[in-house]
Amino acid sequence: MAKFMDVHHGMVGITAEQLRAAHQADLANEGAEGVHFEQAWADPSTGDVWCLSEAPSKEAVQKVHQASGHPADEVHAVPLTV
Amino acid sequence: MAKFMDVHHGMVGITAEQLRAAHQADLANEGAEGVHFEQAWADPSTGDVWCLSEAPSKEAVQKVHQASGHPADEVHAVPLTV
Repeated sequence: MAKFMDVHHGMVGITAEQLRAAHQADLANEGAEGVHFEQAWADPSTGDVWCLSEAPSKEAVQKVHQASGHPADEVHAVPLTV
Repeated sequence: MAKFMDVHHGMVGITAEQLRAAHQADLANEGAEGVHFEQAWADPSTGDVWCLSEAPSKEAVQKVHQASGHPADEVHAVPLTV
């Protein structure tokens, strides 16, 4: 297991309720891929969303987001944290 | 005070020691601007770094990073978190 940061663009105007619903969908789908989504942050003005997860691979992170209907634009391994 | 996510690009090959030193510089400089840098994550393969902070404004976040010698490429207010 490792840490991943994924990025979604184009979600201008996202609401707190929409972010919560998207995160709940990820939590419902993550078990099948051995992923856990820990936190997410959104900037509604630019439409950027970041999700922090623990996962076995980038592909596993993306599979969960795809299953939830919101594939990420970027998935990054973040082996360095402070 | 609000949450901010800032992004640095171009730090390909960043090491754990370099990330720690950069974060320590931010902690040393943050008080003057009323900012607190909480966490940071780096993908050394793409050179992207994300920093999460509590701050009074985007400008305050950037001033601290500039004082530390590593201005951010993007500073986002992230009023939505989950």
